[in-house]
Amino acid sequence: MVSLFDPIFGASALTAATDGRAWVSALTRVEAALARAEASVGLLDAAQADLLVEAAGSYAASDDEEIASLAESAVAGGNPVIPLVERLRTLVAAQPGGDPSSVHLGATSQDVLDSAAMLVTREAITLAAAATSDCAGLAADLAGEHRATPMVARTLMQQAVPTTFGALAAGWAQGLDRAGAQLRRLSGGLSVQFGGAGGTLAAVHPHGPAIRAALAEELGLADPGSTWHTERTRLAELAAGWGALSMAVGKVATDVIVLSQNEIGEVREGRPGGSSAMAHKRNPAAAIAARAAAAQCPGLVATLLACGGQELQRGAGGWHAEWPALVGLIRSAGGAAYRLRDSLTGLDVDAAAMARNLAGSATGAATPADLDAASDLVDRYLNERSEA
Amino acid sequence: MVSLFDPIFGASALTAATDGRAWVSALTRVEAALARAEASVGLLDAAQADLLVEAAGSYAASDDEEIASLAESAVAGGNPVIPLVERLRTLVAAQPGGDPSSVHLGATSQDVLDSAAMLVTREAITLAAAATSDCAGLAADLAGEHRATPMVARTLMQQAVPTTFGALAAGWAQGLDRAGAQLRRLSGGLSVQFGGAGGTLAAVHPHGPAIRAALAEELGLADPGSTWHTERTRLAELAAGWGALSMAVGKVATDVIVLSQNEIGEVREGRPGGSSAMAHKRNPAAAIAARAAAAQCPGLVATLLACGGQELQRGAGGWHAEWPALVGLIRSAGGAAYRLRDSLTGLDVDAAAMARNLAGSATGAATPADLDAASDLVDRYLNERSEA
Amino acid sequence: MVSLFDPIFGASALTAATDGRAWVSALTRVEAALARAEASVGLLDAAQADLLVEAAGSYAASDDEEIASLAESAVAGGNPVIPLVERLRTLVAAQPGGDPSSVHLGATSQDVLDSAAMLVTREAITLAAAATSDCAGLAADLAGEHRATPMVARTLMQQAVPTTFGALAAGWAQGLDRAGAQLRRLSGGLSVQFGGAGGTLAAVHPHGPAIRAALAEELGLADPGSTWHTERTRLAELAAGWGALSMAVGKVATDVIVLSQNEIGEVREGRPGGSSAMAHKRNPAAAIAARAAAAQCPGLVATLLACGGQELQRGAGGWHAEWPALVGLIRSAGGAAYRLRDSLTGLDVDAAAMARNLAGSATGAATPADLDAASDLVDRYLNERSEA
Amino acid sequence: MVSLFDPIFGASALTAATDGRAWVSALTRVEAALARAEASVGLLDAAQADLLVEAAGSYAASDDEEIASLAESAVAGGNPVIPLVERLRTLVAAQPGGDPSSVHLGATSQDVLDSAAMLVTREAITLAAAATSDCAGLAADLAGEHRATPMVARTLMQQAVPTTFGALAAGWAQGLDRAGAQLRRLSGGLSVQFGGAGGTLAAVHPHGPAIRAALAEELGLADPGSTWHTERTRLAELAAGWGALSMAVGKVATDVIVLSQNEIGEVREGRPGGSSAMAHKRNPAAAIAARAAAAQCPGLVATLLACGGQELQRGAGGWHAEWPALVGLIRSAGGAAYRLRDSLTGLDVDAAAMARNLAGSATGAATPADLDAASDLVDRYLNERSEA
Repeated sequence: MVSLFDPIFGASALTAATDGRAWVSALTRVEAALARAEASVGLLDAAQADLLVEAAGSYAASDDEEIASLAESAVAGGNPVIPLVERLRTLVAAQPGGDPSSVHLGATSQDVLDSAAMLVTREAITLAAAATSDCAGLAADLAGEHRATPMVARTLMQQAVPTTFGALAAGWAQGLDRAGAQLRRLSGGLSVQFGGAGGTLAAVHPHGPAIRAALAEELGLADPGSTWHTERTRLAELAAGWGALSMAVGKVATDVIVLSQNEIGEVREGRPGGSSAMAHKRNPAAAIAARAAAAQCPGLVATLLACGGQELQRGAGGWHAEWPALVGLIRSAGGAAYRLRDSLTGLDVDAAAMARNLAGSATGAATPADLDAASDLVDRYLNERSEA
Repeated sequence: MVSLFDPIFGASALTAATDGRAWVSALTRVEAALARAEASVGLLDAAQADLLVEAAGSYAASDDEEIASLAESAVAGGNPVIPLVERLRTLVAAQPGGDPSSVHLGATSQDVLDSAAMLVTREAITLAAAATSDCAGLAADLAGEHRATPMVARTLMQQAVPTTFGALAAGWAQGLDRAGAQLRRLSGGLSVQFGGAGGTLAAVHPHGPAIRAALAEELGLADPGSTWHTERTRLAELAAGWGALSMAVGKVATDVIVLSQNEIGEVREGRPGGSSAMAHKRNPAAAIAARAAAAQCPGLVATLLACGGQELQRGAGGWHAEWPALVGLIRSAGGAAYRLRDSLTGLDVDAAAMARNLAGSATGAATPADLDAASDLVDRYLNERSEA
Repeated sequence: MVSLFDPIFGASALTAATDGRAWVSALTRVEAALARAEASVGLLDAAQADLLVEAAGSYAASDDEEIASLAESAVAGGNPVIPLVERLRTLVAAQPGGDPSSVHLGATSQDVLDSAAMLVTREAITLAAAATSDCAGLAADLAGEHRATPMVARTLMQQAVPTTFGALAAGWAQGLDRAGAQLRRLSGGLSVQFGGAGGTLAAVHPHGPAIRAALAEELGLADPGSTWHTERTRLAELAAGWGALSMAVGKVATDVIVLSQNEIGEVREGRPGGSSAMAHKRNPAAAIAARAAAAQCPGLVATLLACGGQELQRGAGGWHAEWPALVGLIRSAGGAAYRLRDSLTGLDVDAAAMARNLAGSATGAATPADLDAASDLVDRYLNERSEA
Repeated sequence: MVSLFDPIFGASALTAATDGRAWVSALTRVEAALARAEASVGLLDAAQADLLVEAAGSYAASDDEEIASLAESAVAGGNPVIPLVERLRTLVAAQPGGDPSSVHLGATSQDVLDSAAMLVTREAITLAAAATSDCAGLAADLAGEHRATPMVARTLMQQAVPTTFGALAAGWAQGLDRAGAQLRRLSGGLSVQFGGAGGTLAAVHPHGPAIRAALAEELGLADPGSTWHTERTRLAELAAGWGALSMAVGKVATDVIVLSQNEIGEVREGRPGGSSAMAHKRNPAAAIAARAAAAQCPGLVATLLACGGQELQRGAGGWHAEWPALVGLIRSAGGAAYRLRDSLTGLDVDAAAMARNLAGSATGAATPADLDAASDLVDRYLNERSEA
């Protein structure tokens, strides 16, 4: 399946990080890590664990056809872990001495899928946070360069009082830095899931907490100290992190679009877009795409929040509904950051236009206090930033 | 790209109807139809139109690699029509006597993309409405068969008074019929878009309205009588149609899940799902997947509505944001109907369990009036339905 | 309770149409009409029905204190119909010969509340549609007056090709007319609810359908021919109608804001807003408020759609969740239309600024074909409109 | 205006904390604190500051009529700070020696409104967090009492394996504790807003940062170190906090509803609701209301996130749209916690029914390992909780 729109919305890298292959890789890593964790507490023979680790690694290298086949096999039970476990058991059983019952021992599908979702999320955050960091760096550079470049502030889209372009760009950097830092903080706190069929880990009692700790260690995730099968506030926090990124990106993209209007003409994208009908057009196409990608996010966050009332020990639909929503949110918010980076790279700032517009405004030229105040604001933020 | 989740959520057929290939097919059909329409009013030489029709048809048969390449070329300008027009012009120019300026004459990207979106929508509605019709038929059959099968009505999830399972199933059919009929009505009203660069069709004046009418005729779409580049209430209506489908499906799926609880045990899916950890489980997996797919829709509808405030003659992001949201909505709502069909096919109704639960309720057995009233309700609806 | 924000967002009239007093009025009208309907089929003594009609009318005139007390009494059972019925029974019993069992005969709370919701909705639509019609009329007047006033079209917020302000304003009128017409159509189709405790009307069998028809007649609502306690696609349609209004309003408000920018200066509100800090500001405050009110709507529509999966014969929360969402949606979408009317009333159009901006654009002055095409588009719409 | 629905949804206390009176109180406190802060850095005469503090306090005691009048006066400019400043200036000018220009010195409307919004939020969090803490405490008590009370775990709403009711209730407590803790953490970080007309504090340069710090100190808010007029990721964080609360509440409410079904009968609300038509009903009315209130929140969070792309130095609608959405979110999420407290208070747990249902399940009675594992999970959480 080829998407005609993914590249426009910057989603290509994040689509790759969240597609079927990426999920299969994460799911198999969880099964392998579980075996190692169970071996570490003596519940599983180390050799058996090794066999499973090998089988998992080999399955992860499956081609697209096999992944599509796995996806079809997932329909009957409603989640892909069920057929994956079958396939891994078959692979293990095919090895000399391989015991298929060593696969998925004491775990439930949701343990594997939720843990894999956290791995997928972590990798997606790494990508998105890097793009966000690039955006913030570009904004910070603009802030520094233009700390004292006078422009008219516009409130409610009406000319207000003098400021500098640097002060505006410093605000951009702040939002992006804040959103990026929050995502990284969330990434550091991503928790493993391990609760077993009913959430109490009875099947591996009394080793449950020790296995969960070892599993967390194996995967580099946090040990939540408990089961969160239907306690989904973690998802609200993640959703909010991606949502905040979409806000920070959407704000900058909107500003680029507004300042690029011909009548304002204060910025222009370095590689503007053309038109199928008008040769003269210089559209801020990257900012427009970033804004459109960001606009997908509020609804997706709402979907994740609305999934929250999951019944008893495993939600009958609320859990499943998280998967496409989370994937969509990652692609949209992350993609928005990628396209904003395109927009800010080589952004052309027209200080003369800024001066002209300011001169034509009701307040006229900037006073020294105006410039000092704005520069001071920029310097404080760049200082704080370089110390962070 | 392979999705691990699409099949679970029933989206496979609708994904195929909305993927890159489907969009390219629709976009090229619009360009071809435009040429024919312009030839029909004498603006274009018929031979040139034929060359373009041929080029469009040949491009539509491109392989995935070319579609991916087109998608990459769409990034610079922010929409896929720009590079598509270039490719078609190259193809036309390569023909003896081919005039590349005959391609996309008087049109703007949005004309082609919006019209193509309506074609894609129409084909998706055909698929989804058929699945919905199947679901409604299955529900109506259950209603007829169980018009007088007593069960306890449950209000606020508490046992209330006697009803029949047929009365419940008739309500399912009504919602599904209503949603299906609305989608079909919307499909019949889908409008072509043709406004030109600024929305006034000045470039082809005074032939604009005649070309638009002919284009509509060519594509089997309605002639809106005007330009709707930034008048997007049509999208609200479409969104609402898919949203209503998701409600109708979600309601039935929820009921199947609730009635399948072991303690109630009044229905069971014909092919229930299993578990990775518990061999005895008989999960209503299809209903759960349908519910989860339906749960994606409210947020996607909100996204489409939030795109509505599109600036002046072409929205700077609001327009673009519609594409992934519309595609997602079609896949989710349509997929939900597909999975509900799986759930209702062979649904096992346990009249004895219904009788037992009713007998154990505060009101006890159904009176003749209870059964008459419920049967009457069923008969009236099935009558109305057979007349429709 | 006094709201500090309602007037800004134009909600005052719609708040009055949807507050506790309005709901109590509607609920009592339904109970009274039910008695009359039951008398009409001979199920109730006409004199008893008269007593209830009188009691309902007298209760509807209660002061705020009593309404607040009713609201408190509604907490225990989770809906206001339960205590309202008690109060009406007490009032009827206090009359000579009054039989309290004649109140609410055969009905369930949801019958009364859903029917009342349709009455409240109808009255709100009357208000909102009138404001919308005013807005459309103002836009149509602008379209006619400026059918040939040249301006530059702006696509993706970049100058594109010539158009006229009339063509833009005609598009405003179209969206508003379309949204208004849809609301009026929905208003005409609003259905009564009457299903009784379990949805089958068994308690009044075989008079159920006849009573429902008479009740519909009494209230001027449609007879749905069935029970829709948990078949909530009607709510999706209503939600979509209000959502489309919010889109149509939001689009015009956005355009007013964009064209009011000092650097563009093509329109200005007749009574612009000031600032707490800058004496020179002329903010398009009404358009801004309209845009903000419209922005509430997508989320509220999503909430209503997400309520759709209501369990079995009465939803355990999904039904209740509709009440605040519907009220909020009416106030926000309707209020947006009120504030847009303020914005368009006396809107100052600066044809000279339009000419200046056009002259400065890449395409320069409008050609006769540009003006003809735009004027033609306007004339067609105004013609169609005057015939409607 | 009296609401018929607020008490049902538990919103009464939070409505009072967010109504016109509460906002006027907060706005006047900000104006007073600003004067004191400016006096502290020597920008304002202390006596003038005292006059303003007195005027602000006196205005805050206005009756409803005056607040309604202020709200009407807010329409023209689109925010209530403009007329409030006028009123305060009149009050100050009426004092001997009072200088009206000392009011609102160097501030812009958004400084005052955003800071007031943080005060309103803080007070709302105090109320909601207390209710949430009560809920968590009730859940923790249930967990402790029933740490070893066997029940059947239900996954996908199907009987699975043994667990204990205490393990389920511990999960409830965890979600509520987590959401409550997050809200309290957010409350501790709420930031003052002070940026002046263009965001640079030029009007009070070079005292800006010192005034902002003093203002933060006066109000007990954090000093953000910068202006966040259009950097709204803070709102995403707040929205997420309320959204997570709604998830935690919605989960527990759903479980109470599901376990209260007659056929399951494992819990029953201490004061269940009745019916207008069925005397025998024992509806979990408080849980239903809590669930319905929680269901309002995802859409409201989406609205707040969608407000994020605020243009340049002050959003033209995006800022304003936050007010009703934030107020609605606070009332809904907070109200949900209030009603959940009603539901859990005196919740009747039927251990015999749990035992009966478990015995009838496929896995039958709980093993010692089942009980040990579940009790252990409970003990760990209660331990962790008592140490927190």
